[in-house]
Amino acid sequence: MNDLPPFGPGRHLLSVQQFDREGLMRLFGLADLVRPIAARRERCTVLDGAVLGSLFFEPSTRTRLSFESAFLRLGGEVTTTTGFTFSSMAKGESIHDTSRVVSGYSDVLVVRHPDEGSVAEFAAASVVPVVNAGDGTGEHPSQALLDFYTLGNELQARGKPVDGCTIAIVGDLKYGRTVHSLMKLLAVADHIAFRMFSPPSLELPIEVERYVNERGHTVHECDSVAEAVSGADVVYATRVQRERMTEEVLATANVSGNLLNRRILRDADAEDIIIMHPLPRDSRLDSFDLATDVDDLPGLSIFRQTDNGLLIRMAIFLTALGCSPEEVQAATKPHRWDATLRWP
Amino acid sequence: MNDLPPFGPGRHLLSVQQFDREGLMRLFGLADLVRPIAARRERCTVLDGAVLGSLFFEPSTRTRLSFESAFLRLGGEVTTTTGFTFSSMAKGESIHDTSRVVSGYSDVLVVRHPDEGSVAEFAAASVVPVVNAGDGTGEHPSQALLDFYTLGNELQARGKPVDGCTIAIVGDLKYGRTVHSLMKLLAVADHIAFRMFSPPSLELPIEVERYVNERGHTVHECDSVAEAVSGADVVYATRVQRERMTEEVLATANVSGNLLNRRILRDADAEDIIIMHPLPRDSRLDSFDLATDVDDLPGLSIFRQTDNGLLIRMAIFLTALGCSPEEVQAATKPHRWDATLRWP
Amino acid sequence: MNDLPPFGPGRHLLSVQQFDREGLMRLFGLADLVRPIAARRERCTVLDGAVLGSLFFEPSTRTRLSFESAFLRLGGEVTTTTGFTFSSMAKGESIHDTSRVVSGYSDVLVVRHPDEGSVAEFAAASVVPVVNAGDGTGEHPSQALLDFYTLGNELQARGKPVDGCTIAIVGDLKYGRTVHSLMKLLAVADHIAFRMFSPPSLELPIEVERYVNERGHTVHECDSVAEAVSGADVVYATRVQRERMTEEVLATANVSGNLLNRRILRDADAEDIIIMHPLPRDSRLDSFDLATDVDDLPGLSIFRQTDNGLLIRMAIFLTALGCSPEEVQAATKPHRWDATLRWP
Repeated sequence: MNDLPPFGPGRHLLSVQQFDREGLMRLFGLADLVRPIAARRERCTVLDGAVLGSLFFEPSTRTRLSFESAFLRLGGEVTTTTGFTFSSMAKGESIHDTSRVVSGYSDVLVVRHPDEGSVAEFAAASVVPVVNAGDGTGEHPSQALLDFYTLGNELQARGKPVDGCTIAIVGDLKYGRTVHSLMKLLAVADHIAFRMFSPPSLELPIEVERYVNERGHTVHECDSVAEAVSGADVVYATRVQRERMTEEVLATANVSGNLLNRRILRDADAEDIIIMHPLPRDSRLDSFDLATDVDDLPGLSIFRQTDNGLLIRMAIFLTALGCSPEEVQAATKPHRWDATLRWP
Repeated sequence: MNDLPPFGPGRHLLSVQQFDREGLMRLFGLADLVRPIAARRERCTVLDGAVLGSLFFEPSTRTRLSFESAFLRLGGEVTTTTGFTFSSMAKGESIHDTSRVVSGYSDVLVVRHPDEGSVAEFAAASVVPVVNAGDGTGEHPSQALLDFYTLGNELQARGKPVDGCTIAIVGDLKYGRTVHSLMKLLAVADHIAFRMFSPPSLELPIEVERYVNERGHTVHECDSVAEAVSGADVVYATRVQRERMTEEVLATANVSGNLLNRRILRDADAEDIIIMHPLPRDSRLDSFDLATDVDDLPGLSIFRQTDNGLLIRMAIFLTALGCSPEEVQAATKPHRWDATLRWP
Repeated sequence: MNDLPPFGPGRHLLSVQQFDREGLMRLFGLADLVRPIAARRERCTVLDGAVLGSLFFEPSTRTRLSFESAFLRLGGEVTTTTGFTFSSMAKGESIHDTSRVVSGYSDVLVVRHPDEGSVAEFAAASVVPVVNAGDGTGEHPSQALLDFYTLGNELQARGKPVDGCTIAIVGDLKYGRTVHSLMKLLAVADHIAFRMFSPPSLELPIEVERYVNERGHTVHECDSVAEAVSGADVVYATRVQRERMTEEVLATANVSGNLLNRRILRDADAEDIIIMHPLPRDSRLDSFDLATDVDDLPGLSIFRQTDNGLLIRMAIFLTALGCSPEEVQAATKPHRWDATLRWP
C-alpha cells in the first residue's frame, strides 16, 4: 500500500491501493446487503437529502449512469455535468478553485477526468469526499472493485474460492487500464495463477507483473488464447484500445478476427469457463474482441459485471458517507411499482 | 393490429397499434386521474424509488422534459443522457449490449433515436419496459396519444363525441410522422371524416389513407385550407419538415406565407374551430405554418396539447410499471408550496 | 425602482431593482434560516413535489449547479437543459412558444440566456415564476444578492454595518456586469464610499456612478489598486472579461501581472481587508486577476461567497414559491449520513 489512507467514512476513493483484504470484504458485504434494492425489490432512503455532484470531464455514459443510479437508489439526489471543460475553466480557473466551489454544492463528488492525477488534484481542494471515476491512464477503482466482486461471486457459485484460482487475461494488456487495476487489487488474495495472452507490442507492463509477483502470485505468458484459457477458471477479455495507439503499434499488433469465440473455447475444452469483460465490447467485424457467439454460455458474466457495478457503487457511497448496515436496513421498505418485463 | 401485444404492465410501448379502443380509454382514464397532480394541486409519490433512464440519441428537448417531468411528478427519479452517440457506441458497442447494460441501471427506459426500428431493437435487449419517444420516420406514440386525448377533451367540452366528427388535417402530410400515427390511432373510433390539404408533393401516403379507409373512415382531399376547414370540427396543422426534404421537393411544394391564419378562418366562417398543432410551430416569416394571429381564439388548443402531454406520459409510466388508480390515490397528498404566478 | 414589481410569492425575479431595503432583509433572513440545511446538518423537504426547469441557453456550470443544488436541498426535483439552442428553436419556434410549453412542465424556471432582455421575454409567456440567472450584458441578480449578503456578514463579523462602509472595487469595471448590479443593489444602504480602480478604457459607466450618487453614495476614482484598498473595509476584485473586448480595447487596457496580490496589500497596510471576487478567478500567468498568494488571509471571502450563493438561491426559491419560515422549519429534520471530510 502506498501513502493513501484506507478507504472509509469521510475518505476520498482515489486508488485500488486503498484496500486491504479486510477493507475489501467490508465493501463487498455492503454490496451484498443492497442487492435487493438494486434488483428493484426494495426501496432505500438512507441517503435522503444528500446531493451527488457527478462531474464527467470526459464522456463515459455508462459509468456515469451507474454512479448516478446507485446514488438515486439509496435515496439521494444528483446534479450532473458532462463535457471536457467547465465554462469557468476555459476562463482560466484552476482545478483548485473549481473543486472548492463545486464541492460546496454537493455532499460527495464523482469525478472523471482525461488526465492522470487530475482527480487527486481535485480531491485536494474538495470539502467533501471525492470518488475517482477514472483519470486517463491512471486508475478506475470502481471498475476493478466490481470485477473482483463478480469474480468472487462467480467462483463461489461453483464452490471455489478466489485464493488459488487460475485467471486467463487476454487482449490488449498494455493500454487496458482495467487489467492493471484488477491485477493489483487481486494481489490481496493468495496464490493466483495469471495466464496472459496479448498480441505483439500490447504486452503487460513489467511493473504490474512485478507488483503481483512480489505478493506471491504467478504470471505465465502464453502463445495463444487457447493456451491461456486451457485449464483456467476464468477468462478476462479486453478490447483493443485503438484510440490510444500509434499507427505503428497498431500495425505491429496486427489484430483482426475474434480475440475469443465459441470455437476457441470448444477446442480448448473450456466452454464452461467464467467469461468476463470490462465492456464496452467491440462487436464490429474484425474488432479482435469477444465474439457474440459466446452469449448463450452459462459462464458469460459480462452483464452480471455491469449489474454488480450498481451494488459496488452503492457500497462506495454508503462507506464514504458513513452509513452503517443497520442504518441501511432501517431505511429500507417495500415499494408500490413493478418493473418486471412481460414481453413475448 | 400487428403482432405487437397490447400495451400494459411490464410491456414496452413501441407503436400506436398496441391500442384498441378499450386500452385507449383505460389510458385516458389514468390521465384524467392524475390531472390535479400535473396541475400542481397535489403531490404524488407512487413511483417512489423508481429510476427512469431517459436516453435521447437525437435532441428533442421538449419531449424529453415532458417525459422527465411526468416521471418526477409521480415521485420517481431520472437519469438523463442526450447526444447522438454513447461514447461506448463510438467504440463499436452494439445496440444490444448498450441496452442490456443501461436497462440494468433503470426501472423503465424512454428512448429517442433517429433511425426507424432502433427503439424496437433497443427494447429487444432491455430487462425493463421501454417507451418509444420517437424513432426517425417510424413512430412517436405518446404524441399521437396526447393528440387523441386532447381532441376528445376539446370535442367533449363542446358536447360532441369523437365518433362521427370531421377533422381537417393541413400542411406537410408526407413527412409529418405525427399525422400518420394520429390517423391510425383515430381509426379505433367510428366514422371519422378526414379533410386533407397539402402542397404539391407533400401528400398523405396512400398506405395511411388505405389503413383508415379499411376501418370505415373517409378521406377527402381538398384544394385549399379554406375548403378543408369549412364545416370541420377540428383543424390539425403541421409544420413543413424542411430538414427532411430534398431541394427539388421543396421547390415543387413552393411553400411560403401562412398555412393557416385568422383571415382564412374568418373567410371560411370557422373562427370557432378547434385548432391543434404538434409543435414546434415555425413563427418565422414565410414559414408556411400556423400564424400567431390565431393565438387569442378560444379554440386554440396547441398549449392544452402540450399540457396534456404530461398527463398522457404519467399514464404511460403508471401503466408500464403496473400502478393501479387506487395506488395512485393512496400515494397522493397536498404539498406546501404554491407556483401560482402573480405577475402584472 | 423601475416599473418591475417587488420580488415576492408568485413573482418573477428579473432585476436587482425589484428589492428595497426591507425586501432585501426578508430575503437575507430566509438565507440565514436555511444555513444549517445548506451546511448539510439538516434535511428539508418543504419543496417536496416541486419541479425546477433549469434552462441554460449558454454554459454557466457553477451557476447552474448552485441553483439546482439549492432546489434539491429544499426537497424539490430538477430537470436540466443546457446548450445554446433548443432543438425546437432551431426549427423556428419563438421564445414565447418555448417558454409557454416548458413552463407547463415545471413549477419554477431558472433561465440563463446570452441576450439582454431575453429572460424577461421568456417570463412574459411563462405560466410559472421565472428566475433570471444572467442575460448577457443585462442582469444577474442572484450574484449581486449573494455578494451583498456576504459583504454584510463579513462586516458584521467585524462589528461593522454596511451603512457607512468603504468598498474598493478594482479591475474591469466596464464589462463586469456583476459590479454594476452590486453597486445598484448596495445603493439601498446608506452612505457607502466607493473607491474605484480600473485600467484605461475599462472604467465604470457613468450611468452606474450617477445611479449611486443620486442615492447619497460617493464614488472616488483612484490611480492605483494600492490607493483604492488603502483604508477600505472591503476590496471587490474582478476578472478582465477578455472575451467581450475588442483587440483595440485590450491593447489600451494593457493588462498583465497581478491585479491584486499579497505584496500590494502588505504595502498598503491592508492585509486584514475583506477580499471578495465574483469568480471565476483567472489563475493563469499575467491574467491581471486576484493572485493565489492571498488565499491564506483570514479576510479572503471568495469561497464564502459561493457557499452563500446556495443560501441565497434557496431563499429565492422559497420566496417565489410562497413558503414561510414556519413551513421551512416544520419540514426540516435530521438525516442519517455524514459528509464530513476526514482526509490527512
